[in-house]
Amino acid sequence: VTDLIFHTDQQKPAGEQLEGRQQLLRQAGVMANDLFSTQFEAETIDTISSKNCENLVGSVEIPVGVAGPVRVQSQLLDTSVVIPIATTEGALVASINRGAKALEQAGGVEVISQKIGMTRAPVFRCLSGQQATELAAWLKANFSSVAEIMAATSSHLQLIQIQTWVRGRLLFARFVCDSDQAMGMNMITIAIDHLWQQLQQQQQFLQQFADAKMVTISSNVCTDKKDSAINQILGRGYWVQAEAVISHTILQQVLKTSAEAILATHMAKNDIGSTLAGSHSHNMQVANVVAGIFLANGQDPAHVVEASQAMTIIEPDPAGIYISVTLPSLNLGVVGGGTWLPAQRQARELILSGQPITAQQLAEVTAAAVLAGELSGMAALSAGQLARAHQELGR
Amino acid sequence: VTDLIFHTDQQKPAGEQLEGRQQLLRQAGVMANDLFSTQFEAETIDTISSKNCENLVGSVEIPVGVAGPVRVQSQLLDTSVVIPIATTEGALVASINRGAKALEQAGGVEVISQKIGMTRAPVFRCLSGQQATELAAWLKANFSSVAEIMAATSSHLQLIQIQTWVRGRLLFARFVCDSDQAMGMNMITIAIDHLWQQLQQQQQFLQQFADAKMVTISSNVCTDKKDSAINQILGRGYWVQAEAVISHTILQQVLKTSAEAILATHMAKNDIGSTLAGSHSHNMQVANVVAGIFLANGQDPAHVVEASQAMTIIEPDPAGIYISVTLPSLNLGVVGGGTWLPAQRQARELILSGQPITAQQLAEVTAAAVLAGELSGMAALSAGQLARAHQELGR
Amino acid sequence: VTDLIFHTDQQKPAGEQLEGRQQLLRQAGVMANDLFSTQFEAETIDTISSKNCENLVGSVEIPVGVAGPVRVQSQLLDTSVVIPIATTEGALVASINRGAKALEQAGGVEVISQKIGMTRAPVFRCLSGQQATELAAWLKANFSSVAEIMAATSSHLQLIQIQTWVRGRLLFARFVCDSDQAMGMNMITIAIDHLWQQLQQQQQFLQQFADAKMVTISSNVCTDKKDSAINQILGRGYWVQAEAVISHTILQQVLKTSAEAILATHMAKNDIGSTLAGSHSHNMQVANVVAGIFLANGQDPAHVVEASQAMTIIEPDPAGIYISVTLPSLNLGVVGGGTWLPAQRQARELILSGQPITAQQLAEVTAAAVLAGELSGMAALSAGQLARAHQELGR
Amino acid sequence: VTDLIFHTDQQKPAGEQLEGRQQLLRQAGVMANDLFSTQFEAETIDTISSKNCENLVGSVEIPVGVAGPVRVQSQLLDTSVVIPIATTEGALVASINRGAKALEQAGGVEVISQKIGMTRAPVFRCLSGQQATELAAWLKANFSSVAEIMAATSSHLQLIQIQTWVRGRLLFARFVCDSDQAMGMNMITIAIDHLWQQLQQQQQFLQQFADAKMVTISSNVCTDKKDSAINQILGRGYWVQAEAVISHTILQQVLKTSAEAILATHMAKNDIGSTLAGSHSHNMQVANVVAGIFLANGQDPAHVVEASQAMTIIEPDPAGIYISVTLPSLNLGVVGGGTWLPAQRQARELILSGQPITAQQLAEVTAAAVLAGELSGMAALSAGQLARAHQELGR
Repeated sequence: VTDLIFHTDQQKPAGEQLEGRQQLLRQAGVMANDLFSTQFEAETIDTISSKNCENLVGSVEIPVGVAGPVRVQSQLLDTSVVIPIATTEGALVASINRGAKALEQAGGVEVISQKIGMTRAPVFRCLSGQQATELAAWLKANFSSVAEIMAATSSHLQLIQIQTWVRGRLLFARFVCDSDQAMGMNMITIAIDHLWQQLQQQQQFLQQFADAKMVTISSNVCTDKKDSAINQILGRGYWVQAEAVISHTILQQVLKTSAEAILATHMAKNDIGSTLAGSHSHNMQVANVVAGIFLANGQDPAHVVEASQAMTIIEPDPAGIYISVTLPSLNLGVVGGGTWLPAQRQARELILSGQPITAQQLAEVTAAAVLAGELSGMAALSAGQLARAHQELGR
Repeated sequence: VTDLIFHTDQQKPAGEQLEGRQQLLRQAGVMANDLFSTQFEAETIDTISSKNCENLVGSVEIPVGVAGPVRVQSQLLDTSVVIPIATTEGALVASINRGAKALEQAGGVEVISQKIGMTRAPVFRCLSGQQATELAAWLKANFSSVAEIMAATSSHLQLIQIQTWVRGRLLFARFVCDSDQAMGMNMITIAIDHLWQQLQQQQQFLQQFADAKMVTISSNVCTDKKDSAINQILGRGYWVQAEAVISHTILQQVLKTSAEAILATHMAKNDIGSTLAGSHSHNMQVANVVAGIFLANGQDPAHVVEASQAMTIIEPDPAGIYISVTLPSLNLGVVGGGTWLPAQRQARELILSGQPITAQQLAEVTAAAVLAGELSGMAALSAGQLARAHQELGR
Repeated sequence: VTDLIFHTDQQKPAGEQLEGRQQLLRQAGVMANDLFSTQFEAETIDTISSKNCENLVGSVEIPVGVAGPVRVQSQLLDTSVVIPIATTEGALVASINRGAKALEQAGGVEVISQKIGMTRAPVFRCLSGQQATELAAWLKANFSSVAEIMAATSSHLQLIQIQTWVRGRLLFARFVCDSDQAMGMNMITIAIDHLWQQLQQQQQFLQQFADAKMVTISSNVCTDKKDSAINQILGRGYWVQAEAVISHTILQQVLKTSAEAILATHMAKNDIGSTLAGSHSHNMQVANVVAGIFLANGQDPAHVVEASQAMTIIEPDPAGIYISVTLPSLNLGVVGGGTWLPAQRQARELILSGQPITAQQLAEVTAAAVLAGELSGMAALSAGQLARAHQELGR
Repeated sequence: VTDLIFHTDQQKPAGEQLEGRQQLLRQAGVMANDLFSTQFEAETIDTISSKNCENLVGSVEIPVGVAGPVRVQSQLLDTSVVIPIATTEGALVASINRGAKALEQAGGVEVISQKIGMTRAPVFRCLSGQQATELAAWLKANFSSVAEIMAATSSHLQLIQIQTWVRGRLLFARFVCDSDQAMGMNMITIAIDHLWQQLQQQQQFLQQFADAKMVTISSNVCTDKKDSAINQILGRGYWVQAEAVISHTILQQVLKTSAEAILATHMAKNDIGSTLAGSHSHNMQVANVVAGIFLANGQDPAHVVEASQAMTIIEPDPAGIYISVTLPSLNLGVVGGGTWLPAQRQARELILSGQPITAQQLAEVTAAAVLAGELSGMAALSAGQLARAHQELGR
């Protein structure tokens, strides 16, 4: 077996390596001019190669459309926002836009949010359940020194809480951290790795826990990029909720439906259907909207898995309907990962018309956009418009 | 309330509308040259505007790296494949690539696959549970005429099965269809819409079911873009599995771990951790790999939610370990949606070195790539390499 | 280590062994005259000792109350039924009784049911996923001979369907069987054990599958006595649904609530609450009612776990409310297990005023009783009566 | 419609009412001497009628067998215990007994436990998500006065924690309470009812929250008598774990299996099978054992639903295997409900050979018994003994 072809010489500049790979692929019969060409500048390619994507051969372009503006009111925002959506699914931007129009006419979106903190949950094997219980107690009793050791790895990291579970002789410890403006996954991983290395140097710790081993730094109790009940119950990243009351007039004139129809659809689909299907996701199309915003501004698309576990509620209201959407585990940041890429950064800045936006504000705007998507999508489903919308816009 | 700003004149050519929107945003203070510039040609922009993305203002570029090659053996493939990954998560391509190297040394990946079919589940409200039961029976008894009506909407669509559930006076009917080379979601929606309209014209049907109403064409029993047990149990799109036996030598030399360490990590993380977290996803990083491949070749990123409900199995084997990953609900296509975009199409063609690839072959390659990601990722976790990998590659 | 004390001489008659154990316990200081005394006759004790309970030392008495009568209408029943409930939870019988009264005034309960069949799912380890797939295909292709081999173990057993899943090199095969009037769990276990032994004798089978091993005869895919999505989606035992429309008058006069209040409670508790809690059970107190009926007539109380995964639906109706409860996995029988015990058999016969009752009729009556419990319980919750009811009846 | 027949004159003594009901049933053709006769004394019948079971007509007897003795070591226990099991499932007591024997030979069972506290979660509807958030904050900020108001309803009740979730304009508040030696469900319901009534009298509270309504006192977030992720993650009642290391010798000689076979069965059944089935229950037969113990000593059998969500772990160990079972939501008490019934009380006292037992000690013994059941049951499954055991003992 020869070595894999893409292990190119790591000493060469990124641009040369890129060309080298393209050359190899061309020799193998791959004609891919659009993939191979890119607008990234040479310096950008250097950074991408070292931070974002190994074995770089080019890039794909994803179209970006905009929805809104819609007014968002919260403790952090009181302004109209424009929502950039990167998508190839016809009718998606139009749907969000229609929802935004209805929400705007309803007086805007009320948003509440809370920084839960990013989480990572290593798992430790002890000698017995008893020792695992003691290790859990030790971590909590020594919270401030644990927090200090972890904070030494980054000025942006602060430990908020340690949640623990014993199963057999395993201890699952879920570290919840404030990671400032970053999504923070890697930051916490590095901090926990450092913590465990430091504890292996402390005689006092070793006297009691020399036999405890870290099985792995990530145990699926985090839970990262997977559906889970734990994120829904304990939260992860940001907990955000958007809500509005929609009048009968708006339901009829903008959304072409009625309170009765949308409520019946909600009960059949989001309540009964989701339960029958065995789903944690009690909503219509949250994944679509979150994916569109995440891609547009450089978030990690795999985090859509968690964010899509959102709960949409539609209730009768004297004025028409009350609608809300709650996203208990929305993970995002405005630094790190792909957030720095030129077009993505600009798409994010577009939201507040050129003003900088914080991570928590971005979480709030995401929830507002999701509410627009749920409102318009549920209206379409209740009025039998879905097939037609896709026939016209999403062929 | 004024109308939303992005409702531009739909009569104008797409390019002019695009410029109009950019102009509006610039006036609002948005400086976004990278977002606004694009390599899409004018004709491409026309098509994107009508099929993929309304209110177009520009595009974002996502870097694409490649992993492999790795040999894939199945009833449809017996060849080396290259895996294109669009990502901004440092270390992801490197991780898949290392896994591919280990798999290649192990003799390649065995893949089995099955076309389950795309699903859509409308929900009907009847007069009683009894009538809902009768409607279910009617649909099954009239399967061939139902299939014929649906097939009239597209030469690519063929009804495979109707699965039904009664809850109260609601009937949930999950239509499973072969949608040929397309992912097929919209195709089926249109076919069911047409079916219901046709049934509303049939006197015989109306005599029995005049009181039955379609509450909505999509009930979350589909289940589309949400985690669910139903997709795991009944499948959706393609069911695919990739597997390999990895020797002790490869575990040590390529993956820097041992059978014992990777097995212990698997049990603590994928078995116990996932169960404790209340997750349907019994794996390490399937969402990462699927998102990377999906974006690279124009699939819908919201479908990552379903595909990530994959099950990774690692067992002791006389030779070292047996590893497999099963993806019961992998939804993708090679026509429709974003699959036609120039760079995306080329990334897909790159997989078989320029040869065309079918949807089911693409599903098989995706599973092979996921196996590479699981193998390398689990090895890293078991050997304590994760933090270091991200420190070096994903800052 | 001495042998355990209760390993008494198996040659002695059951009554003597029973006394021997009581003697041992008395010597150890246990004074338990009520536990040790029993009304079981000597012959009954013999049978209990050999069929129902090893190491017998006595018995506990569970009080039985009755609710109803309430009219049940189905394809199998059109009569008033009395519901025997064995319980120690104050207010439970009263609650069911009040629900029965409301249902009776509403014209009775409509019930539909279906025999799904009892299930058992062995798991087989093959050489590869490919071989596991082939074994699944073989079982289905040889359905009639498989069914014949299984039927040889009991004249009451008939194979209905084989459902299969491949995960890695494991094949999970869920055998669905008609077990006549018995709950059937053991009957099927014995039949599958026999099937596998027979297949180990068939040269033709061994040529292809000599390497396939049955890892275990019960894989949790059955799923027996555990919550699961699979039972909810594919059913187990009997699928039963009970429904009724309750007028505003009955809601007010009998149930002391209103349509609006009970609907709001349903949405907050059964829809949103259950989803937030991550529960498959979308109901109020199904477990209470099923446990009460099961104990009264000799069913296995551990099967309450599956039956409690029921879905209660309450919808607005022009007349008041529509209410239904669907039990997709109700496992019971009228022969076998504890069903033959004298008082339990009589409690079962009491339901139809002394007439014999079939297993499917018993399933239907159980659903009707559950509906009574849900209706009354939800009414109490919506009207703030729960605390008071327990203060008065369940101190 | 005539009134229901069992609404007998509540002024009459319980014994006369009982006879009256029996008379009515006899007139309706019901011959049920065994059901109608009972060993309960007249005074007991009075109490049962007012506290445990309305519309009393008689009782059923459940046979009780014993398993053990087995040594249990914990912070609360260091003694041999006998395990009383009320069951009609042949082979169950024998299975637990065999497990107990193996555990005894292995040096006994190590148990750790924690009183989590009983929970009840009312749900409140507020004007907005913002107000719901404020109500959550108010409850936490006023924890001590809330605790004081609740404690006024019972000297046995103490508030431990309030956990809150906002969804839309609903606030779910899960009150966690120490209920002393009682299971405590009703105690907490009464305390929360009282709390809400008191708050409705406080001007300061009403100024802020006059618009908040308690939709219902029990929202399924409790979660009572239903499977749920929340109980698994946050616990309920008692969290208990039992564990042991079983040598190769004991595996072979007592359990007729091997470490390899039982580990393979564990992975296929409890890990992969449970995940495939979509179950929260990662175990073999916990429901059987818990139901048997609960019935024997007067617990509520509907609580088996929660307790059966236990996690069994089997790992390789240098000596043989390590096995543990964790029950995160074991609800039980030694006062209240059916615990006072004569035979049930005696069955409970039998556990410590006549010594009184506390609720937490009973929880620990239950876990030890469950471990015995898991060990023996998994051994039987791994050695292909299940069918035979049921053929011999459970026909």
